[in-house]
Amino acid sequence: MEHGTSAVTWAALALMILAAKLGGEVAIRLRQPPVLGELLAGVLLGNLPLAGLLVEANGPAISFAAELGVMLLLFQVGLESSVGEMVKVAPRAGLVAVLGVVVPSILGIASSRLVLPEASMSAHLFVGATLCATSVGITASVLKDLGVLASVEARIVLGAAVIDDVLGLVVLSIVTAVASTGVDAGSITRISLVAIVFVVGALVLGLAVTRGVYRFAAVLRAPHVLGAVSIALCLLLGSASAFSGLAPIVGAYAAGLLLDEVSVRPFGGNGMKNIEEFVSPIVAVFAPVFFVHTGMSVQLGGLGIDSLLLTLLLLAAAVLGKLVCGVGARGKGIDRLTIGIGMTPRGEVGLIFAGAAAHLESNGKPLLLPGVHAALVATVFLTTLMAPPALAWRIRKRNDRETVSGGSA
Amino acid sequence: MEHGTSAVTWAALALMILAAKLGGEVAIRLRQPPVLGELLAGVLLGNLPLAGLLVEANGPAISFAAELGVMLLLFQVGLESSVGEMVKVAPRAGLVAVLGVVVPSILGIASSRLVLPEASMSAHLFVGATLCATSVGITASVLKDLGVLASVEARIVLGAAVIDDVLGLVVLSIVTAVASTGVDAGSITRISLVAIVFVVGALVLGLAVTRGVYRFAAVLRAPHVLGAVSIALCLLLGSASAFSGLAPIVGAYAAGLLLDEVSVRPFGGNGMKNIEEFVSPIVAVFAPVFFVHTGMSVQLGGLGIDSLLLTLLLLAAAVLGKLVCGVGARGKGIDRLTIGIGMTPRGEVGLIFAGAAAHLESNGKPLLLPGVHAALVATVFLTTLMAPPALAWRIRKRNDRETVSGGSA
Repeated sequence: MEHGTSAVTWAALALMILAAKLGGEVAIRLRQPPVLGELLAGVLLGNLPLAGLLVEANGPAISFAAELGVMLLLFQVGLESSVGEMVKVAPRAGLVAVLGVVVPSILGIASSRLVLPEASMSAHLFVGATLCATSVGITASVLKDLGVLASVEARIVLGAAVIDDVLGLVVLSIVTAVASTGVDAGSITRISLVAIVFVVGALVLGLAVTRGVYRFAAVLRAPHVLGAVSIALCLLLGSASAFSGLAPIVGAYAAGLLLDEVSVRPFGGNGMKNIEEFVSPIVAVFAPVFFVHTGMSVQLGGLGIDSLLLTLLLLAAAVLGKLVCGVGARGKGIDRLTIGIGMTPRGEVGLIFAGAAAHLESNGKPLLLPGVHAALVATVFLTTLMAPPALAWRIRKRNDRETVSGGSA
Repeated sequence: MEHGTSAVTWAALALMILAAKLGGEVAIRLRQPPVLGELLAGVLLGNLPLAGLLVEANGPAISFAAELGVMLLLFQVGLESSVGEMVKVAPRAGLVAVLGVVVPSILGIASSRLVLPEASMSAHLFVGATLCATSVGITASVLKDLGVLASVEARIVLGAAVIDDVLGLVVLSIVTAVASTGVDAGSITRISLVAIVFVVGALVLGLAVTRGVYRFAAVLRAPHVLGAVSIALCLLLGSASAFSGLAPIVGAYAAGLLLDEVSVRPFGGNGMKNIEEFVSPIVAVFAPVFFVHTGMSVQLGGLGIDSLLLTLLLLAAAVLGKLVCGVGARGKGIDRLTIGIGMTPRGEVGLIFAGAAAHLESNGKPLLLPGVHAALVATVFLTTLMAPPALAWRIRKRNDRETVSGGSA
């Protein structure tokens, strides 16, 4: 039978899913976030001599599955938050978020220029942009495990991470456009305006239209209609942001923020829970494909002395840049070091940034040398690895001190 | 940003999902199975002047999404049944199933030769093969709505429909191979043997291996690991059946049958329920893409006098062929007409067969003329449309008579 999709593609997809789950399992057993294991599984697969699998994994079907996975993952992250929440925490967490984007970017660009003087400005910008990412998922899961989600520090970290996500995605879009058109103040202004108009426009239009769509969808009887319509909305906004020159994940994230806002009210807590339950299995299958796909793009052969040096410098820039941003937190008795450590893990967001750069070209040549990409992924990897134990250490230490001072009062 | 998947593809996918759900809703409101509405939505989209969408919908990304959808749908259908159940009902339902495959095929081939004397034997075989399909999903849902799932007739119909599915898929594989290599007794024997060896081998090997895999998977802590491993198994068996020259859906269906068998025991009812709950949202998003994609391949412009005549003949062959098969049911006091009507709907299985033929070529020319494909889809469509009300009428009439005779006894 003449099939659009070959037998090798189905086998490659199955192998990628199995490798991701095994890698994730190893990570969980080592008390690390599963995403680290999925990435490592991809690095392993990508560096084994599996020629046929590699060709299929770079084919349009697997790329589509990987991109769908990351769009739905950001959609799911968007569902966890809402436009209203973002507006509420903005005053307290805003400065933390802005410092967390600006400081690591500047330190990253400086490190990149120091080690790679011959690289293009676009490449330096991409390195800087990757360092500004913050992973909401990893920080939230650590704070949840420690039972301190309700603390002031936790709320500021999560609020700042959410704002960071949006800022970071806008930065990614600008940097991506700069990579193809060159550094040019006019186009940066244009892209920033498009990004702001798109995000604000999508949210305003979305808030106005989506509630009506969901009121309509709620009376439909077709099975799983709310879930399917939500996914379609995510794809439509992703498509719209791609048309506007932004990354499709910006639109997918905006769709998640919007749905939280409009769907909780007409349907009660149940309606929202249903959408999250609906999206969760699809993300569980496709998001790991993205991380394995990203891991497969890391070529260990590209790691030389230069990239090891770059990794060390970028790691210092990444950690320092986020520790500094805790200073931006306003309010009395706040532990700014907890906030700084909480902002450190780059996780899947950093991988998305690095993955976006991996396939980019500038003047017909790859934007990043394999060694630079490997250094970026290693940095993302190390910050994500270091943050959970560091955060747990700092919070336990603070709690002990408070218990002691509480006992003496 | 250089993306593997374009903004138009995401928009096309979103539009196909939305169109499917709207079409499904209209069908539900008219008390018809949603799949009819999804197909009609596809026919509508395919015959509107949407050039860009059509090109994208024939691209590898959308084809992949559609094929994934139909594989997971057959996997889900396989989950509803088990190897053990099939063995148990085989003696009672076996003759019904075999008659239900042979009689409609012969009548279909005869009708095709009558109306299209100039068409190839491969084309006639494909028309015959499409008529032998039976839709488990549609029949089961009608019987369930009427509350007669436990009756003798219902058990025979469902058992025969399951056997029919496997027989039909083997027939489809043979006919597909014949279409590309020509009618040749040697290759038919080879394909039949490969099919039998594959199905038996997959089931035997699967029963031996899968339980161990699931015992292992059950101790893993990664989120959604059982669901993801199940999907990977479905893709792996689909890939294996494609490598063996069979349709990938045969392997996907076998994976579903296997999982039911091995997973119910170690995990209790809950383990199975989890897998069905896990697969259900993914099928809800991707299966409609398959039906809309299939519908889009129907070109209404191809419907002429010839294909209308062919539709009428095929419809007669399709209905008569299945009504006759009820005669094969053994046992006293069984209503053979109920069984015959219950076997009539071709539903998604018929569409899969017709869809498989739509993109086939024989000697560089399309295997089926657009008019023949349209006639096949119309026949599938009409049998599916007619069966639910006819079945309900017959069962209600029988119940009334039994109530009356019960009252006089």
